[in-house]
Amino acid sequence: MTQNIYDNTYFFQEYSRMERSLLGLAGAPEWPSLRSMLPDLTGARVLDLGCGFGWFSRWAREQGARSVLAFDVSEKMLHRAIEINSDNAISYRQMNLEDLCLPEAGFDLAFSSLTLHYIENLDRVFESVHHSLIPGGSFVFSTEHPIYTAPRHPEWLVEDEGSRIWPVNQYLEEGVRVTDWLAKGVVKQHRTIATTLNSLIRSRFVLTHVDEWGPSDDQIGLHPEWAVHRDRPMFLLVSAKKQRGYESERSTVGRETPYSRHRSATDISSF
Amino acid sequence: MTQNIYDNTYFFQEYSRMERSLLGLAGAPEWPSLRSMLPDLTGARVLDLGCGFGWFSRWAREQGARSVLAFDVSEKMLHRAIEINSDNAISYRQMNLEDLCLPEAGFDLAFSSLTLHYIENLDRVFESVHHSLIPGGSFVFSTEHPIYTAPRHPEWLVEDEGSRIWPVNQYLEEGVRVTDWLAKGVVKQHRTIATTLNSLIRSRFVLTHVDEWGPSDDQIGLHPEWAVHRDRPMFLLVSAKKQRGYESERSTVGRETPYSRHRSATDISSF
Repeated sequence: MTQNIYDNTYFFQEYSRMERSLLGLAGAPEWPSLRSMLPDLTGARVLDLGCGFGWFSRWAREQGARSVLAFDVSEKMLHRAIEINSDNAISYRQMNLEDLCLPEAGFDLAFSSLTLHYIENLDRVFESVHHSLIPGGSFVFSTEHPIYTAPRHPEWLVEDEGSRIWPVNQYLEEGVRVTDWLAKGVVKQHRTIATTLNSLIRSRFVLTHVDEWGPSDDQIGLHPEWAVHRDRPMFLLVSAKKQRGYESERSTVGRETPYSRHRSATDISSF
Repeated sequence: MTQNIYDNTYFFQEYSRMERSLLGLAGAPEWPSLRSMLPDLTGARVLDLGCGFGWFSRWAREQGARSVLAFDVSEKMLHRAIEINSDNAISYRQMNLEDLCLPEAGFDLAFSSLTLHYIENLDRVFESVHHSLIPGGSFVFSTEHPIYTAPRHPEWLVEDEGSRIWPVNQYLEEGVRVTDWLAKGVVKQHRTIATTLNSLIRSRFVLTHVDEWGPSDDQIGLHPEWAVHRDRPMFLLVSAKKQRGYESERSTVGRETPYSRHRSATDISSF
């Protein structure tokens, strides 16, 4: 069950003060990259999964989308969305994405911004999204990057000679990570890039682009303090398509492979 | 131009003493995972890109491959391959993979083990491999993981309370990394996962599986010292297919996207 931290009064108050809350898409540094991965929205039926304050839903309508169905688990977020980003063709609904149940082939685009790292059962969500898209439909999302979520102590350290380092460990140990971000005890799911991409592939999506997002030189020119994010990416952006008109080829992965182990102990650096 | 470090006498001597050199595939801990990503080889025409001592080429023949064309940049490696892994249907040839020129649709499988991180122009190699495969053909490779190659000082550190940490920085700064591994001044290319995958997608491959390899619980049971590799993966394994019978859908990425920046300076942790 996804934690509904956005309905925590203190968290909500702090989140509401962030630039991406106040300025909408223009306050999100990864938005130009994410936007470049979107298809033309003219006439599109759009799903917004984890819509928050509804900034993307409204933008999609401004780009010519026919309709937007927008979900969020948080009542407070939806209340604000209805206040500031209402539109007669946007439907805001409260729902945990793990309970999604959508009509078949009813949407041209599914979009999700920085929500999937709260979701425990990602396979279930990806299958539901695939089912809901028309053949040729797009799925574009951002999520926290696993290099960012992995560490036991996710804080910058400084090496002896002054280099900044991001202390990666437990990268392959997937599952819950509890951090104090805006409020204490925020629960996120750490997943490798491979797990996310293989889940898409198993759901019969075809991957079309992957972006381990960091600020561009132009962005660093305007915001020198963002340069840290080139040392380790904070966000993972992905676009995928539901194939048109044919059964996708399935991966051969998962076959049993007999293998005898003849290794003896060896220096760990000498693979 | 790829550095030919394997023809360095000292490097070659040290490399020859590694388990993966002495034991072949059974000495490579990632081999069971890589093997599980391979198609059936019965009757297959196989490319082995960076064949080294020829352990995979020989194994492919033992699995029923019709023929193997095996390339390596190093004369010393090929000399040993001919000594210990000769076969009348394996052709060993000296070639820098950046100069590959292959017949169209002449192969069922292209395989490459821990070679592509030496290659500067990856796009060129992927295009050449795609051209050389039959529709439906497979490309399966391993390369060093970018978390492993990124750091300025790629060595484990220990935190105050005893946790091991891998000091990631300059992850998004792609290009040359020079390390002292077996010999001084070994030149490798650091590339993000996104860059590698997008290059495959641009070459019209369909991704079928991604593995950020770490040892399994069983492997750690036999080799407890391998557990460090669960803290940060050392290898990236990828499989992809050349599509059958239709033009692949291309990514929409690369469109120009006008965007106005309204952000002001902000705390770097508050994206």
